[in-house]
Amino acid sequence: MGDDVITVDGDRLWRSLMELARIGAYTDKRTGLVGVNRLALTDADAAARRQVIAWMEALGLAVRIDAVGNVYGRRDGTDPGAAPVILGSHIDSVATAGAFDGCLGVLGGLEVVRRLDELGIATTHPVEVAFFTEEEGVRFRTDMLGSAVAARRVPLDEALALTDRDGATLGAELARHGFDGPDDPVLAPPHAYLECHIEQGPVLAAGGEEIGVVTGVQGISWQEVTLDGRFGHAGATPTERRADAGLAAARAVVHLRAMADSGAFGELRATVGGLHLHPGLPNVVPGRATFTIDLRNPDDAAMDRAEAAFAAFLHDLEAEHDGRLTATTQRLALTRAVDFDEGLRGAVAAAADDLGYSRRSLRSGAGHDAQELAHIGRAAMIFVPGEHEGISHNPREYSTPEACRRGIDVLATVAVRLAR
Amino acid sequence: MGDDVITVDGDRLWRSLMELARIGAYTDKRTGLVGVNRLALTDADAAARRQVIAWMEALGLAVRIDAVGNVYGRRDGTDPGAAPVILGSHIDSVATAGAFDGCLGVLGGLEVVRRLDELGIATTHPVEVAFFTEEEGVRFRTDMLGSAVAARRVPLDEALALTDRDGATLGAELARHGFDGPDDPVLAPPHAYLECHIEQGPVLAAGGEEIGVVTGVQGISWQEVTLDGRFGHAGATPTERRADAGLAAARAVVHLRAMADSGAFGELRATVGGLHLHPGLPNVVPGRATFTIDLRNPDDAAMDRAEAAFAAFLHDLEAEHDGRLTATTQRLALTRAVDFDEGLRGAVAAAADDLGYSRRSLRSGAGHDAQELAHIGRAAMIFVPGEHEGISHNPREYSTPEACRRGIDVLATVAVRLAR
Repeated sequence: MGDDVITVDGDRLWRSLMELARIGAYTDKRTGLVGVNRLALTDADAAARRQVIAWMEALGLAVRIDAVGNVYGRRDGTDPGAAPVILGSHIDSVATAGAFDGCLGVLGGLEVVRRLDELGIATTHPVEVAFFTEEEGVRFRTDMLGSAVAARRVPLDEALALTDRDGATLGAELARHGFDGPDDPVLAPPHAYLECHIEQGPVLAAGGEEIGVVTGVQGISWQEVTLDGRFGHAGATPTERRADAGLAAARAVVHLRAMADSGAFGELRATVGGLHLHPGLPNVVPGRATFTIDLRNPDDAAMDRAEAAFAAFLHDLEAEHDGRLTATTQRLALTRAVDFDEGLRGAVAAAADDLGYSRRSLRSGAGHDAQELAHIGRAAMIFVPGEHEGISHNPREYSTPEACRRGIDVLATVAVRLAR
Repeated sequence: MGDDVITVDGDRLWRSLMELARIGAYTDKRTGLVGVNRLALTDADAAARRQVIAWMEALGLAVRIDAVGNVYGRRDGTDPGAAPVILGSHIDSVATAGAFDGCLGVLGGLEVVRRLDELGIATTHPVEVAFFTEEEGVRFRTDMLGSAVAARRVPLDEALALTDRDGATLGAELARHGFDGPDDPVLAPPHAYLECHIEQGPVLAAGGEEIGVVTGVQGISWQEVTLDGRFGHAGATPTERRADAGLAAARAVVHLRAMADSGAFGELRATVGGLHLHPGLPNVVPGRATFTIDLRNPDDAAMDRAEAAFAAFLHDLEAEHDGRLTATTQRLALTRAVDFDEGLRGAVAAAADDLGYSRRSLRSGAGHDAQELAHIGRAAMIFVPGEHEGISHNPREYSTPEACRRGIDVLATVAVRLAR
């Protein structure tokens, strides 16, 4: 090992993960497992934010909150003008989450700072631990929202005006909890941005690798489709007179899978995760259906072809119904595929090697704040394997204490090498 | 016209329909139309029940309530031992209803009594106006529930133990509103049961006929299917590793339609009106899907074949997923096809002819209380046409005042001829 290899306190890291997971905890009725529900800027998320800020302050970090609620805790460097090394991720969650998604990168960042303090290591560049607002995009329906504002992809006023399903705006929810900070959210290019995250997929565990060197992130497209057909009585409406919006939605779901299976759109992944029928009664032919579409593709051109092909499918569906069914599509999110900085990827690989951890390169299937930061400076990610085929967004999400520690060892080592 | 032809006061009938529709009224956000939401034994339904009972009492009817909440208002006949002619239907509604479904038969029955009083007509048989509990089956998920108990198809204790989605039992809800009456709900065979109802389909309007002579009711099968697959991250779970319960549900919806289109199952109608994905988030591959299936068939043997074929489809779906997806099916309701009494059908046709109303025979696509009553005695139904292709279970449901009046003219005429 080189003398600049850092190992962290895995038990301490684990305790902080478990403690944060108590905020927003719930028990899944069906499985009895304890999960986490901390949708962005709910009371639970606000409580978790206050907890992490308290930990930052206990470490003597200078905390600043920007106007979109992103939070940064700064450990000064010896060069007052040097750009920071930012260790970031998020602590908001989906409604049915585990303890690790996002939190590992943030609490791992705090563990890095603790270790630097213990070891008495001063760095030239400041080291900042950051968490970004509404990474999941579940509540305000734009994912990586806080980091997208920081990286200028989404204008601040547009972000603040986003509403949840009850009509509450992000701006109002930030103000309600006191997270409408004074700082300009647009971020100056950091010296480097590093994010350690659970893989959320089966690849590392299947291959037995301990560390994933993330090459980049797939492009992500989110849309919501509304189909308006004709309501009808389930018993009295002859089949041939129906314009069943639920059936049309089901055909769209089946078609999307066929597109993914066809190979014609590269490595397309397509998911319909939400689907609502109206009025939703057993004996009423649904007159309206709404559903979300999540497309992923590492190739932007293939993504564009997939979107065009699905739009053509919807057009054909309308034509087939002869004016009795209309489709409207709302864009919820579109992020392009991102390749992470080659030099940083090399630094992650070298740190893993120096620590004696097996590694492989892989592309992220999920979206991450790092892909936003990659637009304004150097960024890279470290993945750690997950159990149960890497299940995530589910109370079964689990990475072992050792897996988590190894990831943060790599994070610490890369951070120190860059910041020194 | 014969001297026993009765015509009613259409304006008075219409006013009562509109007045009852104010109870449980709501405004549809999208269309601005006023609809009715009176799910069985909600506060709104209870208020409507009290209104109709007040009207019964104002007419001097002797009101009795049975243990399942069915309400009967009796106008005595001259023969104390004679079985009654019952004019019935229901006043509970789906969540998105109009003013006519069920209510026309009940308020039409009251209008018949009013007219008999005005004309000073005494009858040998008593005339009773009845409304039955939870005809729609939306809240407690068994349709024609009250009349099914009256006709011994559903045991009383089983009915009282049915729960809604919040866990409230029918028994508790009856007691809460004071509709847990003292009378035995099992009904002695009436002299005849007559029900006037909107068609809830497009047939009469398309043919320009004023009266429908209902030949019978299709068999109805309700099931709820739960598919358990594997949750997964929408970005990180490779397509070939998914066990997407939402996709499987969509394939089931498409398959059911193909079954209806095939002709292999007679005049099968198949509807999936409710479908829920879990957890219902855009970026989670649904690990669970639940959906309702409503099958209708005038031929019981064809219905049985359809059910067997769908069960086989679910079995194949499981087999294809190699243990990673399971299907469970819950029976919500099954009623057999019913043919109404030939003599009564002739009486309805004769009354329409004597009144000068055009008529046609047709089978009911919807389920009705009359099909339950047909199991214990003579029963028949009169249909009136609806506008907008006979749309029902929707605020757009509409039958003209003239259409309603003609139906009740026929009801009154048949009732008097039978009861005299």
